[in-house]
Amino acid sequence: MVVEIICVGTEILMGNIVNTNAAYLAAKCAGLGLSCYYQSVVGDNEGRLYEAVKIAYDRSDVVILSGGLGPTQDDLTKETAAKVLNKELYMHEPSKEAIIRILSRRGLTITENNWKQAMVPEGCIVVENPNGTAPGIIMEENNTHIILLPGPPGELIPMFEDSIVPYLKKLTPDVLYSDMVKLCGVGESMAEDRIKDLIDAQSNPTIATYAKTGEVHMRVTAKAKSEEEAKQIVKPVVDELFNRFGDAIFTTKEEVTLEESIVNLMKEKNLTLGVAESCSGGMLSARLISVSGVSDVYKAGLVTYSNEAKQELIHVSGDTLNRFGAVSEETAREMADGTLKTIGCDYAVAITGIAGPDGGTKEKPVGLVYIACGCKDNIIVKKCQFSGNREKVRQSATATALTMLRGQLLKNIG
Amino acid sequence: MVVEIICVGTEILMGNIVNTNAAYLAAKCAGLGLSCYYQSVVGDNEGRLYEAVKIAYDRSDVVILSGGLGPTQDDLTKETAAKVLNKELYMHEPSKEAIIRILSRRGLTITENNWKQAMVPEGCIVVENPNGTAPGIIMEENNTHIILLPGPPGELIPMFEDSIVPYLKKLTPDVLYSDMVKLCGVGESMAEDRIKDLIDAQSNPTIATYAKTGEVHMRVTAKAKSEEEAKQIVKPVVDELFNRFGDAIFTTKEEVTLEESIVNLMKEKNLTLGVAESCSGGMLSARLISVSGVSDVYKAGLVTYSNEAKQELIHVSGDTLNRFGAVSEETAREMADGTLKTIGCDYAVAITGIAGPDGGTKEKPVGLVYIACGCKDNIIVKKCQFSGNREKVRQSATATALTMLRGQLLKNIG
Repeated sequence: MVVEIICVGTEILMGNIVNTNAAYLAAKCAGLGLSCYYQSVVGDNEGRLYEAVKIAYDRSDVVILSGGLGPTQDDLTKETAAKVLNKELYMHEPSKEAIIRILSRRGLTITENNWKQAMVPEGCIVVENPNGTAPGIIMEENNTHIILLPGPPGELIPMFEDSIVPYLKKLTPDVLYSDMVKLCGVGESMAEDRIKDLIDAQSNPTIATYAKTGEVHMRVTAKAKSEEEAKQIVKPVVDELFNRFGDAIFTTKEEVTLEESIVNLMKEKNLTLGVAESCSGGMLSARLISVSGVSDVYKAGLVTYSNEAKQELIHVSGDTLNRFGAVSEETAREMADGTLKTIGCDYAVAITGIAGPDGGTKEKPVGLVYIACGCKDNIIVKKCQFSGNREKVRQSATATALTMLRGQLLKNIG
Repeated sequence: MVVEIICVGTEILMGNIVNTNAAYLAAKCAGLGLSCYYQSVVGDNEGRLYEAVKIAYDRSDVVILSGGLGPTQDDLTKETAAKVLNKELYMHEPSKEAIIRILSRRGLTITENNWKQAMVPEGCIVVENPNGTAPGIIMEENNTHIILLPGPPGELIPMFEDSIVPYLKKLTPDVLYSDMVKLCGVGESMAEDRIKDLIDAQSNPTIATYAKTGEVHMRVTAKAKSEEEAKQIVKPVVDELFNRFGDAIFTTKEEVTLEESIVNLMKEKNLTLGVAESCSGGMLSARLISVSGVSDVYKAGLVTYSNEAKQELIHVSGDTLNRFGAVSEETAREMADGTLKTIGCDYAVAITGIAGPDGGTKEKPVGLVYIACGCKDNIIVKKCQFSGNREKVRQSATATALTMLRGQLLKNIG
């Protein structure tokens, strides 16, 4: 089954945003066993959009469009796709009510153009959008499936996961099953090197690797007549990955994040956590708190960006700051220690570094970060040198801190 | 002049990598005054690649291809583009010498397939690649320009900057200039509604709007013979946007973020800031600290996710928590007040809410967030009801907090 992805938006054509939707949709479709031969991007122009949808409709089994479902006159995707299939639009009352509900809840005034989002092509399947005012649309004609999704990733991704994946699964006779083996603390090329023989020998299951800041994900996918059978094909390969990478694997589940695996580990053992952040400035706390139910584990966090805050809130000594500087092993250790004492938690993580672009010196260049992590009388500190811009350094520091915390937990509590 | 971008590579089609080359090339071309109507991605398949290049050659003035110039049999871009123009390939001696030079410098053995990279279409312009073994290629035929670039960004970007930009500049007489007018605190459809007449009347400059969580961005772009002239065309429209949206506009510069505009505002007035976060869990601090040089303004942040932390770190009274709950106007106000006192800052922002998916009740549903913001004796609290998943609620709360803080600053300090 051939799928084609069309992303609609002048902001992509102008290079204002990177087309992450296409990568997301492509990876998802590949995981579902759909073959993607074409991706394209067109602007909010009716003629060119019509042409693109028409070509895709003629050559592919599934056409996924993202973007252009907004309330403005620029937004033409739905109208144009309907035109390709010769369908009229009508007012879909449940969508209208949903728009009223969402906009009033947000305290926004409803304007005339909002109703445009509740107009849908006749005969289509309307897909609810709990995260926005544009419903998704599925049109079926001549065994071709045209799927329209809202452009913002915060709306597109949940809609795809919740509604489109089950729909696409029904279209494909074979069942695909994947385990997502996620590693932390191992570099991508080293990971690939260690499984080169498995990759060279792959046919069913296949192994695909993806790199993420501080993590490597390996998707092991099998195709079979039943999910049970597919799982049986996946299992020995996943077992082999555990043989090779052991504790570096933190989950085999797509939806589980590194922070979630840590929160679960700590929850099991009734352990609590406190965080002190300088250059990462809240990113580590924000990742941990993205886990629903983290309140059993996460006690508090302190963003001690200034030296003053380091001294006042977590009692880093002025002497240490003067002698070794805010970015030093000693300061990181005192930050973690002070966090344990101030917050009264079992484990603490502290990050201090130079995120740049300014503030670097020859001795302490941009990207230098110290991360301290541990429990009472057992704090380790790691010196890291990250590359990339300010955001990238902060993200790398956050990812490394999580990996360290997990390592400490595994060492101490087995 | 119309440009079209074709990225070649199965790894993009499979979603293994995000297509950053397309975004880079698109932004660069837009800046050069080229209109990009199409971007597409095709795999390493001769038939489909031929089709894509043929279509692009027929409808665009400039076709830029990236990827597929490697030494393996999979790499078909050059051969296929040459076929579309009916050109033979020949061995380009300077490229052959460059390959020998580069590979011996890297200590690599030269294999037979390396020579494939030195084969170029007859009559083309060969573009040197100081960062790799694949030279760039420019073919000109019937006033259409086909440009082939290597796929790795570390080779593509320097080649584009050094050789392709000067080439394209000669082709385009016009210059483009944009201002990016960014608003906060105004919904997308309301914003569009208020400039409907301007959008309807647009030709030069054009106005394009983009929504981001809590913000609306309006790009005003003019085309002219010189940058000075283009700026003159943009100015009256931007002035008119200021007439209509006033203080809701926080910048006219592409690269300036809301958090940066706030940090600059506070820096100017020597004001300091402290933050207390519950459900947003560090996101607000992380956004503020993304601004380089924030240390003059940002004093400290507290992630008081638990009630205990709210009481111990920022002295929210147990009585308030018991009577009104952690998610209440009273708690938000005491969090901000306690932050002012504990941190000793001029302004404080506090966020407390129910991000979900659990924890909601009929009285206090998921998405309910209270945001408190202000300075001593002047704290305002806003009750918000956000929709979407946990991440979306937290992002919306963070964006709204920034908008509130900016509003308070403008009111108090002008």
